[in-house]
Amino acid sequence: MTAVAAHPLGARMAAEMAEQPERLAALVAAAPALEERLRARVPGVPAGVSLVARGSSDHAAATGRYLLAMATRRPVGLASPSLASHYGVRVDYRGHLVVALSQSGRTPEIVRFLAQAREDGATTVAITNDAGSALAQAAHETIDLGTGPELAVPATKTVTAELVALALLARALGPLALGDADLALLPDHVAALLADPGPAEQAAAALAGARTVLTVARGLLLGAALETALKLQETTGLPVLAWSAADLRHGPIAIARPGVSALAFAAPGPTCDDVRALCGELAARGAATTLAGPFPGAALPWPEGVPEALAPVLAVVRGQQVALALARSLGRDPDRPAGLSKVTLT
Amino acid sequence: MTAVAAHPLGARMAAEMAEQPERLAALVAAAPALEERLRARVPGVPAGVSLVARGSSDHAAATGRYLLAMATRRPVGLASPSLASHYGVRVDYRGHLVVALSQSGRTPEIVRFLAQAREDGATTVAITNDAGSALAQAAHETIDLGTGPELAVPATKTVTAELVALALLARALGPLALGDADLALLPDHVAALLADPGPAEQAAAALAGARTVLTVARGLLLGAALETALKLQETTGLPVLAWSAADLRHGPIAIARPGVSALAFAAPGPTCDDVRALCGELAARGAATTLAGPFPGAALPWPEGVPEALAPVLAVVRGQQVALALARSLGRDPDRPAGLSKVTLT
Repeated sequence: MTAVAAHPLGARMAAEMAEQPERLAALVAAAPALEERLRARVPGVPAGVSLVARGSSDHAAATGRYLLAMATRRPVGLASPSLASHYGVRVDYRGHLVVALSQSGRTPEIVRFLAQAREDGATTVAITNDAGSALAQAAHETIDLGTGPELAVPATKTVTAELVALALLARALGPLALGDADLALLPDHVAALLADPGPAEQAAAALAGARTVLTVARGLLLGAALETALKLQETTGLPVLAWSAADLRHGPIAIARPGVSALAFAAPGPTCDDVRALCGELAARGAATTLAGPFPGAALPWPEGVPEALAPVLAVVRGQQVALALARSLGRDPDRPAGLSKVTLT
Repeated sequence: MTAVAAHPLGARMAAEMAEQPERLAALVAAAPALEERLRARVPGVPAGVSLVARGSSDHAAATGRYLLAMATRRPVGLASPSLASHYGVRVDYRGHLVVALSQSGRTPEIVRFLAQAREDGATTVAITNDAGSALAQAAHETIDLGTGPELAVPATKTVTAELVALALLARALGPLALGDADLALLPDHVAALLADPGPAEQAAAALAGARTVLTVARGLLLGAALETALKLQETTGLPVLAWSAADLRHGPIAIARPGVSALAFAAPGPTCDDVRALCGELAARGAATTLAGPFPGAALPWPEGVPEALAPVLAVVRGQQVALALARSLGRDPDRPAGLSKVTLT
């Protein structure tokens, strides 16, 4: 960590990234008590689950909706915050579970959405890094990310903690292909990635010369592609497109050509072949492709044997590393992106 | 229409755009019988509503989720197609309404999703341009867009028809701020826009020189921003970012600077001030901003007095015009984007 913190650019972001193994270990250690508490609070089978969030938290939710649907076998969707905050629509949430994610717990429209959903009958869960925040106070139950203050503008340790929190919530509500042993190994896997930034630096170099950068994934890993695109944009100011592999084929693949560089995330699972086939199609159109995943020869590798439910955590860490390395190579300070503030007041 | 069809590039796309007034008029004329049929089929108050689609249809669904939540006052979400097609997750949809949108009615994962949801207890509605398609056959009830064959790769008339179909479905299920007179006027408003392509050609010229193009909106109009970004990418091969105004502030606004050109959609309603304020922030960072909406001095105007529920139709038409004009100015043929096919087989 000393060597990382010594770099003049992004020292804070790097330090917070480096905390991830211990913060995730603490969350995993709290899992049994947390899951018991959640099981006691949330009705056995909710009529449905709605997730509400913005920015990086919304990307964690994009993965969470799969995990929660797999575990609860009930309809799960991402809600539109402005439905409550701007349109003033009251929704009958009786029997439903509403999960709100906010690092600060202070984004007004997210707090309002959750408070209103609770008034309207929902069982409510807050996932936040501030257990004393307005969001936590508004919810029936809170999952405290407990990662300590996050001061760099680009969220890092709170995002991976949100991904783990959503997996724990899903496990509390129903069966999920994710065992205690898998969770216990996660912090070491994250530490191994953080100790091996070289591939990310090389991937950043491949992106640096591109005219257009895009990220792509599908299914459980889509949230990691969305989050990596945001991280790259926040830290470098370069435009980055994020796509589901399926949607990319629907039309925007027309943008793939020489000068376009794609960062694709895949992990063993039902959508893996589709994403890897898409990499071939992108390459056939002349785009450069960097594959991230636990595969021999992957440019941006992570350890094998991690269940798909946790693969997004490793993908997000790899994305953080690429964003940090790219920002540094461009001489930008990711700790202080021009004109951004940490708490979004929408 | 003759003058439009005479242009050697995008003749088919232009012809299908030009059909929109008559196609929408036919859909509006069928509304009373359609709404009665839907009311008879769909349970009074569904436990929740899930929308499933890909590409342009998914953008119509992004607007539809607001309309359906406003009308039903129940949780409405966009479902992940791959949950059914790849992960094989069976969801208990008893009491829920599932709405699938597909122009062709043949996208396999959408058909499979709907068929499986029906088996799992959902009341199912298909919105498609082929009433004899596999999707229509799998659904309890079908809204036939009835726009005639759509042959250009970029979907146009089917998208505006989907937006109207979703508004009609919402009206059938509950109160919506959208009267019969508003619907009756819509085809003429669309015809007025199509007869006035000049502003779109000027907007296209403003985008042509940009290093980065982005579209932005919020709430009901977000779907139009997503759809316009896709249309621009399909027809020109240029990368285009689409953002919710709220999410753009969360971080990616760091990309706004001279050389960035933003196309913002706004209409009188609860999110209008937010989007217009964001235009000011983008301009303050040096980005060029083109405002589309029913405002004096808007670069890309549409008629005043249209309820917000139908504003996305006008916004999408303006976006189509910009995409067509930009493709032509770049010498590209939007009817035949490199390597794209009309039906996506995901």
